[in-house]
Order: sequence, then structure tokens, then C-alpha cells
Amino acid sequence: MSHPPEFDIFTVTCPSRTSLARIANKRTAMVVAALGDDTLRFTELRAAVAGISNKVLTVTLRHLERDGLVARHVHDEVPPRVDYELTELGRTLRAPLEELGRWADEHMERVLAARESYDARL
Amino acid sequence: MSHPPEFDIFTVTCPSRTSLARIANKRTAMVVAALGDDTLRFTELRAAVAGISNKVLTVTLRHLERDGLVARHVHDEVPPRVDYELTELGRTLRAPLEELGRWADEHMERVLAARESYDARL
Repeated sequence: MSHPPEFDIFTVTCPSRTSLARIANKRTAMVVAALGDDTLRFTELRAAVAGISNKVLTVTLRHLERDGLVARHVHDEVPPRVDYELTELGRTLRAPLEELGRWADEHMERVLAARESYDARL
Repeated sequence: MSHPPEFDIFTVTCPSRTSLARIANKRTAMVVAALGDDTLRFTELRAAVAGISNKVLTVTLRHLERDGLVARHVHDEVPPRVDYELTELGRTLRAPLEELGRWADEHMERVLAARESYDARL
């Protein structure tokens, strides 16, 4: 992997390493994929990412908002309505994360077979 | 993100979700990038992934070996020599992870700017 000199994921103190931790993350991948082109409320998003707790989804969304990847909109209604969508920056993450999702889909059988054969050797 | 019906990352019980957790992971990304086309000893790999502890690298390598992504070779020498390389399956992960690394490099400035502006609002 060649990197421009200003950032280096192999350097502990480099901010791109923190950023990689944020984006190379199952929950980020699932939230970005679940949002896609849509604007979703918290409950809709939670339903889309099955099995995620309120707390974990809240923290994930706050991180993504802080990183400028997700926009949180609070509508002045009664009761107040809050929804989420990918920002323009967040949308640029879709393609690389979809690549990774495709990899998981395409190679899952081989990974599972490798696990079985590894466990059988123990 | 469209998925073939047999795997669905949004289903908690689906094995592709576990697999996504394994590959959409900072440490996996760094080890795969650090190995590249090389065969490295543990100490060389640890030096390449600065700031990783022996324990964390050991666990990461064991997971990657179990998933069939990394091959561990024990050479019958005194003292015994152990080295690691990506398997053919592991090499197929390089391109999608490199995409993600490129994203981190290219968008880092904007992510950092977003963080600063978010924190300034608190």
C-alpha cells in the first residue's frame, strides 16, 4: 500500500490511523450501508441494522457525525423528529465499504471452510 | 448495497456479519497491508505495524490464520523460525482494503476539520 508522505497508517500517532479505525469497523460499515441514499429516523436505522443496541447505535452515530460522515437533523415538531443521512463526505465511503461487503459475500464459503478445517486440527 | 440472498450482513445470525467484523477491522487492515507480497517473521511484522502489542498481534494473526487469510510456516531449525504470509485468499483482500486505506488518506483533512468544528460546537 503506498501512501502520500503526510499520512501513514503504520505510524501510531498519525490521525489517518484513528480514521482507519473508525471506518474499518463493522458498525460503521453497517450504518453507512443502511443509510445509503435514505434519510432515516433512529428507530428505522436500528431496524435496518438488526441486533444493534440503542446505546451502540447512538455512539456509532455520534462518532460518524463528529467525523462529518453523517448529518443529524432535528425537526422542530411535537414530538421532535430526529433523522439521519449520509453527508456528501459520508457518501464517498459507500463505494469502498461496498467493495468490502462484496468481498465478504463472495468469499464467505471459503472463510467458513478454512475455519472448519482449522478447528478440526486443534 | 445489494447482497446475494444467501448472505446478509444485516442479519445478526448470518456468518457474513462475523466475517465483516473480522475484515472491517483496523488491525486486519494493517496486518494485510504490512504483509503484502512478503513473508515476514513475527518480529518483522510487529515492527511494520508500529504500536501493536505482542498479544494483540498474536490474536490478530491467529484469527487471520483460522479464516484462511494468513499462512503460518514453522521451519524446522534451531532456534525454530516461524513466518507469516498472505494466502491466495488473503491476497484477494488487499485490493478492497487498499481502497479503504486510500479513502482514509484522501479524506483525512476533511474528517479532521469536521471533528474540530463538531468539538467547537460542544
